Amino acid sequence: MPQIESPAFFIGKGTADNEALLSFGSGQPDLPPPPSAYNILQSYRGFKYGLVQGELTLREAIAGEYPSATPEEIVVTNGASEAIDLVLRAISVPGGRVALPRPYYYSYPHNVTLAGMTPVFYDLDEGKINYETFERVVQGCRAVMINSPSNPTGTVQDVATLRKIEELCNNLGIYVLSDEVYKDLIYVRENYPLKGKRVVTINSFSKTYAMCGLRLGYFHTLDRELVAKVVDMKSHTSMNTSIASQAMGLAAMSERATYVASHLPIWEKRRDTMYQGLVDLGLDLWKPEGAFYVLPAIKNSTRAMHDLYYNYSLITYDGTWFGAKDRLRFSYALDEKKIGEGLARLAKFLDTEYRAYA
Amino acid sequence: MPQIESPAFFIGKGTADNEALLSFGSGQPDLPPPPSAYNILQSYRGFKYGLVQGELTLREAIAGEYPSATPEEIVVTNGASEAIDLVLRAISVPGGRVALPRPYYYSYPHNVTLAGMTPVFYDLDEGKINYETFERVVQGCRAVMINSPSNPTGTVQDVATLRKIEELCNNLGIYVLSDEVYKDLIYVRENYPLKGKRVVTINSFSKTYAMCGLRLGYFHTLDRELVAKVVDMKSHTSMNTSIASQAMGLAAMSERATYVASHLPIWEKRRDTMYQGLVDLGLDLWKPEGAFYVLPAIKNSTRAMHDLYYNYSLITYDGTWFGAKDRLRFSYALDEKKIGEGLARLAKFLDTEYRAYA
Repeated sequence: MPQIESPAFFIGKGTADNEALLSFGSGQPDLPPPPSAYNILQSYRGFKYGLVQGELTLREAIAGEYPSATPEEIVVTNGASEAIDLVLRAISVPGGRVALPRPYYYSYPHNVTLAGMTPVFYDLDEGKINYETFERVVQGCRAVMINSPSNPTGTVQDVATLRKIEELCNNLGIYVLSDEVYKDLIYVRENYPLKGKRVVTINSFSKTYAMCGLRLGYFHTLDRELVAKVVDMKSHTSMNTSIASQAMGLAAMSERATYVASHLPIWEKRRDTMYQGLVDLGLDLWKPEGAFYVLPAIKNSTRAMHDLYYNYSLITYDGTWFGAKDRLRFSYALDEKKIGEGLARLAKFLDTEYRAYA
Repeated sequence: MPQIESPAFFIGKGTADNEALLSFGSGQPDLPPPPSAYNILQSYRGFKYGLVQGELTLREAIAGEYPSATPEEIVVTNGASEAIDLVLRAISVPGGRVALPRPYYYSYPHNVTLAGMTPVFYDLDEGKINYETFERVVQGCRAVMINSPSNPTGTVQDVATLRKIEELCNNLGIYVLSDEVYKDLIYVRENYPLKGKRVVTINSFSKTYAMCGLRLGYFHTLDRELVAKVVDMKSHTSMNTSIASQAMGLAAMSERATYVASHLPIWEKRRDTMYQGLVDLGLDLWKPEGAFYVLPAIKNSTRAMHDLYYNYSLITYDGTWFGAKDRLRFSYALDEKKIGEGLARLAKFLDTEYRAYA
């Protein structure tokens, strides 16, 4: 049985469509995108290069979601991943350090390293930013990454903390990469978009519209020089983002309000089922306030992940991939019935094998 | 009137659809992709993450085009651009040099620099590789880029030369990035795919199927370690390539033989019209053997490009962007009527303003 080295082992493989295999792994919404996204395909005939920065119609629609934003401040990318990659490469300086939350989304440290900089970490307290820790770590950094709601912790940062972070980073003159891809999946309040002249807000159609595979993301920033630098770079590294994906994304936006409003209660109900289920199994965890992840404590998590996959056909992600030793990440992007079945398999595991290393 | 700094100024802007503006600029086929590419959209409902390496069905179809290739040797990317970017980043070593042809595709030097390496150049003789020059320049390099048929020269390298290059690079143990995106647009012979254990063959759906805006490319290599490294990297930098674009590409492949066969004579006829037209205007150039570019000598090419754009509504690309001073690149991806009209505007320019700096 092959060793599971990283989430790449699971991506696009184990999905909820395979009845034998149940996945609490990938952050892949199971509910389909708005019908509008497909309706336009009936007459779609695009094939030519588009603007490297992204189609103007799409950037106009996106700008409409940000107070006083303009299309010139937005760059459309191959998912949030490419936005992070390009922005980090564009601001990279020799010896530059980038402060990341810990636990972190597993790609962040790789993104920083691939951009020629060094990751440093500000540890979260049960998923929350400790401002004193944050303030100490970000000194002298080139950039800092904020991720609220967070993957993998499911926490949403307090607005008061975010305001203090805005002020601090503005005074320090460091770039803030605010990964807000779960902005439309918050159960406790409205999203609070970070603001500032060196803030880069990273977003995506993947979670809001369940369009993960279409790879449509973007970033917004007031820093026009950074926009120009990224667009120039992207003209060499990938050119425009798929024009078919952009057309589908623009169409999906026409249903934004109703789609998001009708889905949020579904996510919240699943969150409650998942959270209560894990609490009932006696696991130690905090209650998620956004996104669709929980991060309970499970000792010897690497071994537990392997056992769950090979012996219970249950995909979970090892917390160590996220800088969270002795924790497992569960995505609850599944219907309630499957969540129940997954919890039952987990219960069986906890009652048997897990005792050996709990 | 703004200074035109790079091809990015024109990409996705001036197209042949704008009647006033005529474009010999972007390498964007005007004829649409095979109908199959759109037919599948009627019932298309994909939205989930796909394999980072690319859908298996697509990689199987691509592998079928390479003798004894397997899907495991192929990685699907956001156009050939991303293939080049990721491969260079994956093989990057401190102080590494990468040998590029000169004239070169304008992105190459940027790709090398963005990957943390240094470009060095082997100068072409009227678009052809001089083997002695090549042999001298590649010594001690980490990698070499081959581009046949070439953008911007339109030349196709001799098979005898390519065989000698295979042997030399194999002996030196250096990576060969063979950019063969124009492999299906050769007027003089079949494509000769470069072979070797460190050869990376880069290809694309953009030119063969006129799918530029869909951003679908790939590479093939026997080097499985390189494949693994790129897939891991791509899982952090962009994840899977747009699944809609992949589905369209797979469908297009079902019409490959008839589509390519019916288009080649059209391109050849345009090539003849363009070549003869420029010869008749007294310009110095060589006859293209592939792709859809000509690179005639035009003194003070930067000024000429600006004059042609602002005074004659004719887009051309400055040769200096391709390392070819005092030349202009013309793409003839236009119907014959527009090529004729473009040549007429060029004739007027040559008869008037150009005299001042010819």
